[in-house]
Amino acid sequence: MNVDIFGYFAAILTTAAFLPQLIKTLKTKKADDVSLTTLIMFIIGVLSWIIYGYKISSAPILIANLITLVLNLLILIFKIYFSKKTKINKTYFF
Amino acid sequence: MNVDIFGYFAAILTTAAFLPQLIKTLKTKKADDVSLTTLIMFIIGVLSWIIYGYKISSAPILIANLITLVLNLLILIFKIYFSKKTKINKTYFF
Repeated sequence: MNVDIFGYFAAILTTAAFLPQLIKTLKTKKADDVSLTTLIMFIIGVLSWIIYGYKISSAPILIANLITLVLNLLILIFKIYFSKKTKINKTYFF
Repeated sequence: MNVDIFGYFAAILTTAAFLPQLIKTLKTKKADDVSLTTLIMFIIGVLSWIIYGYKISSAPILIANLITLVLNLLILIFKIYFSKKTKINKTYFF
């Protein structure tokens, strides 16, 4: 069995895994329990993987991390957006 | 500048990033907004990275993913634990 299969399977799963989080955040309109520090550290880490993938000319590292970056940036943006929206609503109605 | 520095920096950040999520989950005693599907897909993905790292004898891939696995398993366990505890409390008191 080709060893690379595990690598590709791993890359697809650890990338696609963030799609359900994004969908959940959009559906429930909140991501309060998702750690902001985790998101920021993870995004900086993924950016470093992109630089590394570019420097060593690895298309799989580059592609997987670009998708992971977009998904996590969207989760971060919507987390902050929904968090601020909730605060404004609370200020007006309570 | 050594290219590997980006790789090591990336590996450390995308691994350590899950520690604040674990701490937040333990502090707030909930992780309802954290997607269960994301956690399960990510854990299976990380397991595949471990198999891949073992097969190609890559210590960095193996070590980074073992730590990521432990942190994400703990987040998953505590998410389920706190979720069930809240449900039991609600059943008794409401």
